[in-house]
Amino acid sequence: MIKIGIVGYGNLGKGTELALKKNPDMTLAGIFSRHFHPGMTSLTGTEVFPDTAVLDFADEIDVLINCNGSRTDLPLLTPLYAERFNVVDSFDTHDKIEAHLQRVDTVALREHRTAFISGGWDPGLLSCLRVISAVLLPGGRYYTIYGPGLSQGHSDAIRQIPGVKDARQFTIPVPSAQNEVLAGKTPDYQSEDLHTRECYVVVEDGADQAEIEQAIVTMPDYFADYETEVKFVTEEELKDSFNQIDHYGLVVHNAHTGLHDEHRHQFRFNVDFDSNAEATGSMLVAIARAVHRMYERKDYGCKTAFDLTLRDICPLPPVEMRRKYL
Amino acid sequence: MIKIGIVGYGNLGKGTELALKKNPDMTLAGIFSRHFHPGMTSLTGTEVFPDTAVLDFADEIDVLINCNGSRTDLPLLTPLYAERFNVVDSFDTHDKIEAHLQRVDTVALREHRTAFISGGWDPGLLSCLRVISAVLLPGGRYYTIYGPGLSQGHSDAIRQIPGVKDARQFTIPVPSAQNEVLAGKTPDYQSEDLHTRECYVVVEDGADQAEIEQAIVTMPDYFADYETEVKFVTEEELKDSFNQIDHYGLVVHNAHTGLHDEHRHQFRFNVDFDSNAEATGSMLVAIARAVHRMYERKDYGCKTAFDLTLRDICPLPPVEMRRKYL
Repeated sequence: MIKIGIVGYGNLGKGTELALKKNPDMTLAGIFSRHFHPGMTSLTGTEVFPDTAVLDFADEIDVLINCNGSRTDLPLLTPLYAERFNVVDSFDTHDKIEAHLQRVDTVALREHRTAFISGGWDPGLLSCLRVISAVLLPGGRYYTIYGPGLSQGHSDAIRQIPGVKDARQFTIPVPSAQNEVLAGKTPDYQSEDLHTRECYVVVEDGADQAEIEQAIVTMPDYFADYETEVKFVTEEELKDSFNQIDHYGLVVHNAHTGLHDEHRHQFRFNVDFDSNAEATGSMLVAIARAVHRMYERKDYGCKTAFDLTLRDICPLPPVEMRRKYL
Repeated sequence: MIKIGIVGYGNLGKGTELALKKNPDMTLAGIFSRHFHPGMTSLTGTEVFPDTAVLDFADEIDVLINCNGSRTDLPLLTPLYAERFNVVDSFDTHDKIEAHLQRVDTVALREHRTAFISGGWDPGLLSCLRVISAVLLPGGRYYTIYGPGLSQGHSDAIRQIPGVKDARQFTIPVPSAQNEVLAGKTPDYQSEDLHTRECYVVVEDGADQAEIEQAIVTMPDYFADYETEVKFVTEEELKDSFNQIDHYGLVVHNAHTGLHDEHRHQFRFNVDFDSNAEATGSMLVAIARAVHRMYERKDYGCKTAFDLTLRDICPLPPVEMRRKYL
């Protein structure tokens, strides 16, 4: 049995806890939360401890799954945990992955630990599909299309604007552009040609809505390049009407082969998740299995999805695995 | 530059030859054909040699791609070539993969070579998607649906029947069953519930059509369990009207998570190829890159798709790869 620890007990921590129930080769050694209070319970009855206690469990945990937030927690905590644990996280700020990886790698190599960052559906699974696309059928063009679904990062960005009390941002694919690439065309589309952004914003009393709207639609990287719609709603409306947690993602790859590029080929990979947190948690658990196996054979350092074999994430022994799936 | 040899110069060999043009880190050292004749030319102008000459090129080839047929050639030739070469094949007889693997593995380990068997879209890419499905979202159910498209194995099986001159078999998905699993249902469907089979058969003069039809529809493993339609056509009709080389394949996975399994999730992966041979050749070339890298770090023996990392199949260095795709 692989002994798993979960640190961070929000939605992702709970999703990870539930996923362990479906992986009989693993056991949950403990849940560690910064919001610990006496009498605190978990979904499955596993004991909850304050997150400061996790170091006391170093000998009882094979792999620690770090379910804290990407924006401020993971960059600090994953390198810290890598000193004493094999650790898995879901760091998802694409343009900061390399810096995060280098920090975690340095610690993990020094301490002879195996770490894994940026697990989940994107970065993670869809990243793998992008590589499969570009490498197995080179010379083509792939597109990643998200939504309709909530973007946590974009919602957070709106919440930083003064006068904003709460906000949720939904990413919506542009149907005509999506149909064009599904039909095998290879237009030079960037993300802003494939998506529009809908923002639902709750403001503080007396805040200037026009000013906030302007701050959103001109925000570089996040909104400036996109067709963006801003709607002001009440706290109740936000809670009641805009609480979807489902997610859709699609990688489409169009490529040609032949002496005169006369043959068309397409890969199409869709994910459709009712619960992003539970799907991501389920993936982190499979990754923890691979991390444990890599650690056992002394393959130390910081890994990503590109360093895993399917053999390592699969609970079955190789012969049985090949018979069943190959 | 990775130096590639191609042995077997039918459709797959030609598809592999063309794919090398799109992989600038590789070069084609030679094409080897059993049908060699003086003055024989290749699509891209690379010199063609008799396949018996391939051993003379052992020092000039980093990886040999064995593009011969699965049914009788590969089981003999891949172990033979593994004595002198790192070798890649596309062995696709699912229930004989393990025996083939053991034979190739024994030779490759003894001779310190890296070999890879069963590359392509299935077994191969769709196999990987089956593992991804079953392992990342366990407890669910996946389905592999083929077609509409030609099945080489089933066509071959019909051609073995006395009185049959030529035949082609098309595998057709059952629309209602396909829609059901795409809609997230998890019926206990086997392959025969998901597909029907259409056979176009040319008979020899004087052959008994009723007897041949009976032999087809009762053939165990291939047709007996399926709804099978047999149509007798002329050689010209077969050549002119049933010459499609495109292929469709789909892996759908439906799974649930949540304390009470209340959340539904779906992975859906479609491949749509105008030319099966060229798509498969393109995949074998990417695999050859990984084989070369594994060999360089002394990772010997016989591998399958489950033993590869995406890092090894990708031409980009790891940092650039992560920046671009992760």
